[in-house]
Amino acid sequence: MERNIEILDSTLRDGSQGEGISYSVQDKIHIVQALDDLGIKYIEAGNPGSNPKDMEFFQRAKNLKLKNSQIVAFGSTRRKDSSCAEDVNLQSLLSAETETVVIFGKTWDFQATEILHASLEENLEMIRDTCSYLNQRGRNVIFDAEHFFTGFKANKDYALKALGAAIQGGASVLSLCETKGGAMIEECREGVRAAVEKFGAGAVIGIHTHNDSGLAVANSLVAVEAGATHVQGVLLGFGERTGNANLSTIISNLQLKMNCKCIPEENIKQLTPICKRVAEITNITLDPGLPYVGQNAFAHKAGMHIDAVLKNPFAYEHIEPESVGNSRVFLMSEVAGRSMVIEKIRKFDPSITKSSPVVSEIMAKVKELEHQGYQFEGADGSFELLVRKSIGKYQPFFKLRYYKTSDESPLIEKGLYSFAQLKIEVDGHEEIAAGEGNGPVNALDFALRTALKSFYPSVEDIHLTDYKVRVLDGKSATAASVRVLIESTDGTDIWTTIGVSCDVIEASWLALVDSFEYKLIKDIEKKYHKFI
Amino acid sequence: MERNIEILDSTLRDGSQGEGISYSVQDKIHIVQALDDLGIKYIEAGNPGSNPKDMEFFQRAKNLKLKNSQIVAFGSTRRKDSSCAEDVNLQSLLSAETETVVIFGKTWDFQATEILHASLEENLEMIRDTCSYLNQRGRNVIFDAEHFFTGFKANKDYALKALGAAIQGGASVLSLCETKGGAMIEECREGVRAAVEKFGAGAVIGIHTHNDSGLAVANSLVAVEAGATHVQGVLLGFGERTGNANLSTIISNLQLKMNCKCIPEENIKQLTPICKRVAEITNITLDPGLPYVGQNAFAHKAGMHIDAVLKNPFAYEHIEPESVGNSRVFLMSEVAGRSMVIEKIRKFDPSITKSSPVVSEIMAKVKELEHQGYQFEGADGSFELLVRKSIGKYQPFFKLRYYKTSDESPLIEKGLYSFAQLKIEVDGHEEIAAGEGNGPVNALDFALRTALKSFYPSVEDIHLTDYKVRVLDGKSATAASVRVLIESTDGTDIWTTIGVSCDVIEASWLALVDSFEYKLIKDIEKKYHKFI
Repeated sequence: MERNIEILDSTLRDGSQGEGISYSVQDKIHIVQALDDLGIKYIEAGNPGSNPKDMEFFQRAKNLKLKNSQIVAFGSTRRKDSSCAEDVNLQSLLSAETETVVIFGKTWDFQATEILHASLEENLEMIRDTCSYLNQRGRNVIFDAEHFFTGFKANKDYALKALGAAIQGGASVLSLCETKGGAMIEECREGVRAAVEKFGAGAVIGIHTHNDSGLAVANSLVAVEAGATHVQGVLLGFGERTGNANLSTIISNLQLKMNCKCIPEENIKQLTPICKRVAEITNITLDPGLPYVGQNAFAHKAGMHIDAVLKNPFAYEHIEPESVGNSRVFLMSEVAGRSMVIEKIRKFDPSITKSSPVVSEIMAKVKELEHQGYQFEGADGSFELLVRKSIGKYQPFFKLRYYKTSDESPLIEKGLYSFAQLKIEVDGHEEIAAGEGNGPVNALDFALRTALKSFYPSVEDIHLTDYKVRVLDGKSATAASVRVLIESTDGTDIWTTIGVSCDVIEASWLALVDSFEYKLIKDIEKKYHKFI
Repeated sequence: MERNIEILDSTLRDGSQGEGISYSVQDKIHIVQALDDLGIKYIEAGNPGSNPKDMEFFQRAKNLKLKNSQIVAFGSTRRKDSSCAEDVNLQSLLSAETETVVIFGKTWDFQATEILHASLEENLEMIRDTCSYLNQRGRNVIFDAEHFFTGFKANKDYALKALGAAIQGGASVLSLCETKGGAMIEECREGVRAAVEKFGAGAVIGIHTHNDSGLAVANSLVAVEAGATHVQGVLLGFGERTGNANLSTIISNLQLKMNCKCIPEENIKQLTPICKRVAEITNITLDPGLPYVGQNAFAHKAGMHIDAVLKNPFAYEHIEPESVGNSRVFLMSEVAGRSMVIEKIRKFDPSITKSSPVVSEIMAKVKELEHQGYQFEGADGSFELLVRKSIGKYQPFFKLRYYKTSDESPLIEKGLYSFAQLKIEVDGHEEIAAGEGNGPVNALDFALRTALKSFYPSVEDIHLTDYKVRVLDGKSATAASVRVLIESTDGTDIWTTIGVSCDVIEASWLALVDSFEYKLIKDIEKKYHKFI
């Protein structure tokens, strides 16, 4: 029988403790909408008592119309020597006017006495009293039992008493927090079992884990096996230290493999695009190695694997990539075989078969280039141009007459290291342009853009978003060959291009030209709704 | 009672299937040395039958003197319709002359019949025969039971028969492979238990997992709980798709929390620096969120929290960061290691203690440089120069007046991309020199050597043997900051130097100057038998 598991996402609260993560109020609204689209039950969106930005968010959030989710506010038990009514933070929490609130409290005896400097009984009273106060004011209370597993190990009886105090105060969910992230699987199972046995009849038991031992996902799943029906985490797994439990992985495992329902069934197909959206809003790169939703989660490199996967994906894939909205990727490499080349060509010409001569031509070209140091697995843009050139779906946009770059030290001006000059020709018209920058590629990029923009205004939309350099054969040191990868975007699409040369500047130039050409071809094809 | 667990690292084999991972033969030698320093038992270093680069590695590897590790070669069971003696890949495997070999074979009935097109009995015979052939030629055979867990689910009896065939052939280790990465924790436990019950008395049972469900670490630990005593993985967890089991996490959990011994006890303190070294050689950034060894694994927020952690780290940390050679992020400069600084200074002045003011001065300098993007773990030469500058064991050898480099296309001459000119001063004498090359750094290196050689003839002995470039903040694309590492040798010593700048040429120049200065100081000190 399918079990219902309620999910609480804390991207906006615990997740925002991660290094380099910072949300504007507008970002927070966008994240809420993405999580609502996915069908997350609870969105823990911040601590209204802790800062004015969170307070502003909760004011604006009151007007949001959500399909699936409810926004919850987070706060702490009242202070030791005051009443709930006098506690400023609790008053802020109430003013957020959320249906549900999350209250965290101490369940590890050591933390109560050594960090709060409260007696064990005082701490229980703070928990009971706070839950009760909020409950009487109509709030559904989720109790976050901080350090529960460490507490359970140190003083089992007290940890359970603290849960009991929350229940007496009217909490409906007891969320067991593995705050230090250090618990092993069996410790986690044991703690959850004890809480389920004692309180499972009257309350929902939840789990909240961190990844310090690399077990945040495993401990969450084991907790569900042991009876928990509420799981807290962060959609993409970021957070303080090693991060929070990754909900994209947990939801996939629970829903696709453990017969649980966390989000509406049809929404799991939206998981990958929504994760990408959340990564974009957060301004981070989605880890390509993330289970289920990462760009490489279904990437195949070895040739033998690729043939087998094309014949029968079940042979090497644990699930269908499409079931989580991801897709299969064949990384282009010498060993990858012709199957992948065919897949690419079919986009332009569906009649191509394995034995078409053009397939062998392209394979030979790829091999030759890989021998020089090209690697197309990370350079979809350049690979597409290579295929286009072989099948006639390509046109050049300009001719290079020359370029020159120079670098010097000491600097003429602070930060100004490099100069570039170039001449190009478009349909018989010549254009000379110059660029400067804090590196030679930066200067060249600037000059090329300047020269092309009067002919092709859309080049101004191109932004280089990533730049990678790899020296290929270290043995011959500075005379070694260099591979440059450039990632570009025009705000809609993202593409990657490659250049290889013994000269880092020429390698960059080649990748740069591919990037510009890729964009210009796409623009024409979009405009005329057909391949050039 | 402490259990011994043997570790097999497959960074150089399965790990190298990861996107963008590519090792030269020299890189492979460096990785072997790092893993040997850590104390890994088996280093699976490649498939000698699959490509000439691996074959070259195994030839060179025969001369390596290792303290702890043995290098093992990887290959497949013989082909269906031939004998072992006729099998080219098996002959290559033998010619690698390793004491131990890993042989993978099919244990999932579907894979035998549908992918190999062999009958079930034929497949068993291939396993038995191959193990036996290698065993008779003096090899210790580890059998990698590909797709064991999927096979066990589909046809339990056949999966166990396949293990039995390996035992009959004389395999000493049965490594159960979770090839698709899709198994849940309980499936994994059940499969390992069955293998331990049936074969545990006569063979070592091993585990090999992938991270497609985010459970590679958990499944490895559960396997050990169920009786496995051999664990395969990749030190930093990279590999095809979502990666292999992360050994840095697994070793830490087993050794610090599960009363197992995987590597010599004193070596676990080296875990973080060795992981950094492996990341450097691989030319990837170590994920800051990695459990135990990531830069943020023990990150704490500033202010009150720091004080609390300093008073009682136990309140917030699952282990002592130092126990794995890591440290708290608010003491980030400590990552470079106060002890490493002290150790270096002691070479010059044995009276230095932990509290000497110069130690704090150097630590502050290191911290500032690390903030700029320097990383001294992989740059011993530059680190020694930094220490020397702080304690007065340094002299400059020349002053740079200026340098200029230029690059142009089309080329004046084939292969001639770059030009450099510079002026230096030595003791009031000026020297102007020019250089050309197939890249700007090559040209600059040539010019500097030419300018210096009349003053310091030994600069002609310097050869640059490796050159690495890493873009540090890819997000700002071509304006990002660049880290250059140069490895040099004079035929006797090898040293590595570093430079960081937004300009790749300046970064290379800084590393080049350090390399020349390092050599010249050493020469003087050798000549006069004392420190300058």
